Amino acid sequence: MAGGEFELIARHFSAFGRGPGVVLGVGDDAAVLSVPEGCELVTSVDTLVEGVHFPEDAFPEDIGYRCVAVAASDLAAMGASPLATTLALTLPEADDFWLHAFSEGIGQACSAFHLPLVGGDTTRGPRTISVQVFGVIERGRAVRRSGARPGDAVFVSGTPGDAAAGLAVLQSRWQPEPDHGEYLLGRYYRPTPRLVLGVQLPGIASAAIDVSDGLLQDLGHIAAASGCAIEILAEQLPLSAALQSHPDRQQQLAWALSGGDDYELCITLPQDRRPPGGFTRIGSVREGQGVVCEAAAGLEQAGYRHF
Amino acid sequence: MAGGEFELIARHFSAFGRGPGVVLGVGDDAAVLSVPEGCELVTSVDTLVEGVHFPEDAFPEDIGYRCVAVAASDLAAMGASPLATTLALTLPEADDFWLHAFSEGIGQACSAFHLPLVGGDTTRGPRTISVQVFGVIERGRAVRRSGARPGDAVFVSGTPGDAAAGLAVLQSRWQPEPDHGEYLLGRYYRPTPRLVLGVQLPGIASAAIDVSDGLLQDLGHIAAASGCAIEILAEQLPLSAALQSHPDRQQQLAWALSGGDDYELCITLPQDRRPPGGFTRIGSVREGQGVVCEAAAGLEQAGYRHF
Repeated sequence: MAGGEFELIARHFSAFGRGPGVVLGVGDDAAVLSVPEGCELVTSVDTLVEGVHFPEDAFPEDIGYRCVAVAASDLAAMGASPLATTLALTLPEADDFWLHAFSEGIGQACSAFHLPLVGGDTTRGPRTISVQVFGVIERGRAVRRSGARPGDAVFVSGTPGDAAAGLAVLQSRWQPEPDHGEYLLGRYYRPTPRLVLGVQLPGIASAAIDVSDGLLQDLGHIAAASGCAIEILAEQLPLSAALQSHPDRQQQLAWALSGGDDYELCITLPQDRRPPGGFTRIGSVREGQGVVCEAAAGLEQAGYRHF
Repeated sequence: MAGGEFELIARHFSAFGRGPGVVLGVGDDAAVLSVPEGCELVTSVDTLVEGVHFPEDAFPEDIGYRCVAVAASDLAAMGASPLATTLALTLPEADDFWLHAFSEGIGQACSAFHLPLVGGDTTRGPRTISVQVFGVIERGRAVRRSGARPGDAVFVSGTPGDAAAGLAVLQSRWQPEPDHGEYLLGRYYRPTPRLVLGVQLPGIASAAIDVSDGLLQDLGHIAAASGCAIEILAEQLPLSAALQSHPDRQQQLAWALSGGDDYELCITLPQDRRPPGGFTRIGSVREGQGVVCEAAAGLEQAGYRHF
């Protein structure tokens, strides 16, 4: 890291770097983290690009919060406990106002999700943010996508579809009641990674994934990795009051089944196990392949495709 | 990860994912890595932006190789052994030709530096590459920037300045003999992270840094972190034959002292210790602050500033 860059990082981000697993944080060639004995390291990276993953006029504070939340969601989907995070930040110029607000959001999320910021890189270029998260889990206990078996039940956390509806509000495609609109925008800009639910999954869930690209599409990854089929009953989907305030039931279902950005957890459980509180049963695992949802016939099921 | 994106990653990169520390690689919500008992995790991220960190007409194979090499260099500077890497790739479009060549370079580097590729994210946007590397080191043995003490000797690996000279060749600012030109271009496009030297440093070196932004500037970070001054004797700098083929001695020194992109290691050693083979003594640590180099008076000493 060079002079100006280093000062910039130190000024804005070094306050968020302390945590029990942090041996050495920002300011050296690399960070050093402590992984407890008997544990494995879990890591994932997510990139957000301006104009693609967030609107150009989004508040920098929300962008900062969201990019950490989105990455943290992958830790939850593995059942991991949060350890630390790093940030690779590409910016067109060193805009102190933008950086200040952005770092506020980063700090709020790092604090909320117990993810001290231990390192990063800042470069000049089109605004792009990559957040890498680190978690720990007892050896061999990570919850994978591949463990679903016929007969398992399928559950989802929270109320899927809210973020997609929030994006519709943001893009003026729908104008709900103000309270509902505010709630849905919040669900888009400030998703809650389900870390508290996630750490309860090892030993209980047979498979898990976070819903980033749409419920049906993401369940398709569990089905493919597990070699079985998943049937979803749309009438069992837990929809928020805000989402249900949309007059068109088909639109509600489209958001809930195919909308992205929810960062809820989808899990499968053997029939004799009970999920942690906060999950709703929405279907079953069957022999076969693919994801079936009768109500979804005619919906655009592709979810979000990055290319 | 969504459909097309997932297939794209699987097709191009999944072959590089195996290694002794890899519990779970590409294809789930997160990767799972095994950190040996008694060891700590070392991690660093580097971003390369097209048009900023590599020319727009660079061979994609070289870009792929270089971005892994650059990141791996930070592991070497900590004394860590390589464990794994992840790749956050932002591309304007899914260009199969580009991706094929790029992934060739990634694969060559992952193989050469023992860094299995265990995860990543691909997104659409201006071409930007973030590589996160993971290494391991015995607990408490990471070599930091802050341990230099007055009386220590200063060493550098390899022949600094070659990459900056290579960039000059690339930009047609200098046309050396063909053999020299090819060598210098290779040093720019295909730097060698000094991992083999790095793992020999714990317990020997009092401080270390890799030279990414220029020798004087990077030594300035050791001086600042250690609270002392560093004196460099320019006549002791090990210069390559190719660099010395430039007619202007001042230009040779400017590249060696202020050029970036070398990814050599600079280390400090107490006087009673000997460095591993491959290092050349170039100066001493003194009481005081900053970096002094008489030959550098008049040179632009700032190195590379990212902003």
